[in-house]
Amino acid sequence: MANTDSLNVRVFSLNCWGIRYISKHTTQRYAMIGELLSKEEHDIVLLQEVWSEKDYLSLKKKLAHCHPHSHHFKSGVIGSGLAIFSKHRIHDTFLYRYSLNGYPYMAHHGDWFGGKAVGMAVLKLGSLTANVYVTHLHAEYCRDKDSYLPHRVVQAWELQQFVRHTSAGADVVILGGDLNMHPEDLGSRLLMSYTGLRDSYLESAKFDGCEDGMTLIADNAFIGKGSIGPFEKGIRIDYILFKGSSKTDIYCDFMSTTKGSAPDHAFPYSDHEALTAALRVETHTPSETQRDGQRSSPNRDAAAGKTAGLVDMVTEARTEVKVGLHCAERMRRTATRTGAMGLALLFLELAIAAVPWLALGAEQPFPRTSFYLLAALCFAILVTTALLYVFYSTELKSLQGAEDQMRLAVGGLQEQLRGSAVAQPHAGQRGAPEGRGPGARGPEEGNRVPLTDPMK
Amino acid sequence: MANTDSLNVRVFSLNCWGIRYISKHTTQRYAMIGELLSKEEHDIVLLQEVWSEKDYLSLKKKLAHCHPHSHHFKSGVIGSGLAIFSKHRIHDTFLYRYSLNGYPYMAHHGDWFGGKAVGMAVLKLGSLTANVYVTHLHAEYCRDKDSYLPHRVVQAWELQQFVRHTSAGADVVILGGDLNMHPEDLGSRLLMSYTGLRDSYLESAKFDGCEDGMTLIADNAFIGKGSIGPFEKGIRIDYILFKGSSKTDIYCDFMSTTKGSAPDHAFPYSDHEALTAALRVETHTPSETQRDGQRSSPNRDAAAGKTAGLVDMVTEARTEVKVGLHCAERMRRTATRTGAMGLALLFLELAIAAVPWLALGAEQPFPRTSFYLLAALCFAILVTTALLYVFYSTELKSLQGAEDQMRLAVGGLQEQLRGSAVAQPHAGQRGAPEGRGPGARGPEEGNRVPLTDPMK
Repeated sequence: MANTDSLNVRVFSLNCWGIRYISKHTTQRYAMIGELLSKEEHDIVLLQEVWSEKDYLSLKKKLAHCHPHSHHFKSGVIGSGLAIFSKHRIHDTFLYRYSLNGYPYMAHHGDWFGGKAVGMAVLKLGSLTANVYVTHLHAEYCRDKDSYLPHRVVQAWELQQFVRHTSAGADVVILGGDLNMHPEDLGSRLLMSYTGLRDSYLESAKFDGCEDGMTLIADNAFIGKGSIGPFEKGIRIDYILFKGSSKTDIYCDFMSTTKGSAPDHAFPYSDHEALTAALRVETHTPSETQRDGQRSSPNRDAAAGKTAGLVDMVTEARTEVKVGLHCAERMRRTATRTGAMGLALLFLELAIAAVPWLALGAEQPFPRTSFYLLAALCFAILVTTALLYVFYSTELKSLQGAEDQMRLAVGGLQEQLRGSAVAQPHAGQRGAPEGRGPGARGPEEGNRVPLTDPMK
Repeated sequence: MANTDSLNVRVFSLNCWGIRYISKHTTQRYAMIGELLSKEEHDIVLLQEVWSEKDYLSLKKKLAHCHPHSHHFKSGVIGSGLAIFSKHRIHDTFLYRYSLNGYPYMAHHGDWFGGKAVGMAVLKLGSLTANVYVTHLHAEYCRDKDSYLPHRVVQAWELQQFVRHTSAGADVVILGGDLNMHPEDLGSRLLMSYTGLRDSYLESAKFDGCEDGMTLIADNAFIGKGSIGPFEKGIRIDYILFKGSSKTDIYCDFMSTTKGSAPDHAFPYSDHEALTAALRVETHTPSETQRDGQRSSPNRDAAAGKTAGLVDMVTEARTEVKVGLHCAERMRRTATRTGAMGLALLFLELAIAAVPWLALGAEQPFPRTSFYLLAALCFAILVTTALLYVFYSTELKSLQGAEDQMRLAVGGLQEQLRGSAVAQPHAGQRGAPEGRGPGARGPEEGNRVPLTDPMK
């Protein structure tokens, strides 16, 4: 660990609740947020729910002096709502849209229209490459009967895949955003275990903020009682996560959240609390001997235990996805049947209409009004069910795809467990299957941390 | 370059044209393809247009002895059509769905329903990590008036981003598939320049196949004259691309294509020709001095020239995307206007209906039939235009997103040009802006190759 350099990075994350004309006091709150950011001059600002391009542009203008670099990630019908502001030059950006994101007909929930995604920006922090991710997962509207759970689990799965596969070359990895998942939720566990990202709140040497790091609290004036369900005081669903690499170690020196109010203002910045983490990045020249020494660490039982834990976790995720699959299949079957009934009704109607005309002539008065109304109804049913069929087919494909990937992951992990149980000699060897499991952070060698000490 | 090891990898790629009930002789052709693959036992088989899960599963069964590992990538309504079969264990897979992919109402072109994507599989080739990509881009139906060009350019842009950002940790990178782009097309140039991938056909020491490496040829019995437009003999749109890393060099020893017929069969394997590339991977221990020596290479003019070329290329891509933006905006405006007209018509009709009822009483006979027909028409217009509005908004967001990213890329490249013109001393330093351009293959250090010799 010779040549240690130290670098401080202050990261801010906030779900801005920026739905124009619907969110309360949007304009004033954006002004407050702009003021706060101008004053605090964080290195990296990660915002969610910046739905309006206009609001983004006005923030950009206001922050030009302190955050000259920024990016607004666009997707879906109204945008992803994700934005990043940075003191440091943004060299590259990339957006991954989650394959599942609620239902378009649940317009009052609006998630589908937002095109939820994870945005990535590649920055330079001094001589270090930092991959910064900002994301916002599907909201949880009812924890007891969460019909979006399979979608959110698949989003968490895709998020860990994206971070893992794109961060191989990064010296510093930072992820911030509204995950809409509690710390112990399946999706959070998947994300943390697979990527090796660490939670600022848990890691911070010092913390000043809401109890238990909560970010959606009852004391916030914008929070309705319904949003936090059975949780009296609040929940923790917003995070700043980080990890280093073989070249860097990262520590969280201080973390804070707002506490349901903004100083000198009548109302808070948002319905979510804002998070700030002061990270310290220590650079060192990795010494090969040391790394090899770490790798041949004898604590294999712990590694096997961890792998077994991962098997359980992915199996749990597969179960959730399968629940989603059954649900989507049922919905598609219902759409098919309803469509078939609509078609049958149309044929029946045509037959009834054809009988008096062809057989009995025009003696009886033809019930025109009912005929046209019924025909319109049949057409409406046919069109709606066709659209729903297409939508559910897409949902099914995405769920099946995620399930396939999870099955592959479980297979690999089990292979790994068998391998470590049977043949120990190969364990330290580069490229041995032991190193390819999710405990390793992606396919890279440089970032790979041994399974025995994955949370280092 | 001490400790050089050599490894041979045979890669196969074919667009299978597997549209059940529509493609000709699908069952027989799949049987032929299965036979061929069983006999040839390639290391990696990349297939496109395997639309049916059943066909994939029957291939999987047939190839179980020679290709025990496989994956079918699922997306869209009917699937991505992408499949990979491998001799070597697949450790991980990941799918990136392109944000733009034609129009759902162009059902006869079908691309939208296919959910075009790029699939990635992480394999182990001996001790090396190989990232293998398989993709299929939007088809070109009319080269002169290609309304899908902006979509295909954005797909190529996203493809290069995906490959660049996910391949940082790989020792070997292989991409195969039907790019639906000629070698000199903008999208091909973007992909090759940004990723540093090399074209097997151009690199191969020996080639046996169609003239100019064509993969869609007039001599193929399934090819209609229209598909290849003004190109008399055919076009080259299928590729096997590859690149090594700081640890590996890759060479293509031999490449072949089928020539419009299958030996001992009445018809060819597909409407596309199959590609086979014999790659040789040489592993060496990278010597720091040598890499530093390369990096301080004095050939800066060539690097600046290359960067300037990239600026032109990305600018050209931006122009295409802007054309797409204008088109999408026009279409959305048209949808909005038509919807407004539908609404106006509905109100007018209601007003007309209300007048005799309210003012004149029921003396005049009310034209019920026309009333209901017109109302149904108005509703149909409203629903259709609402759906189109949503669709075009999504298209706009994706195009704007791509344009933003391209603008950022051009800015970075120009900065780089200015940097290299003004301040030369920093050039070799790690993390200097010179190294962050697209000439560098992603944010990784290990894989970074100096701009002066990017095609090495």
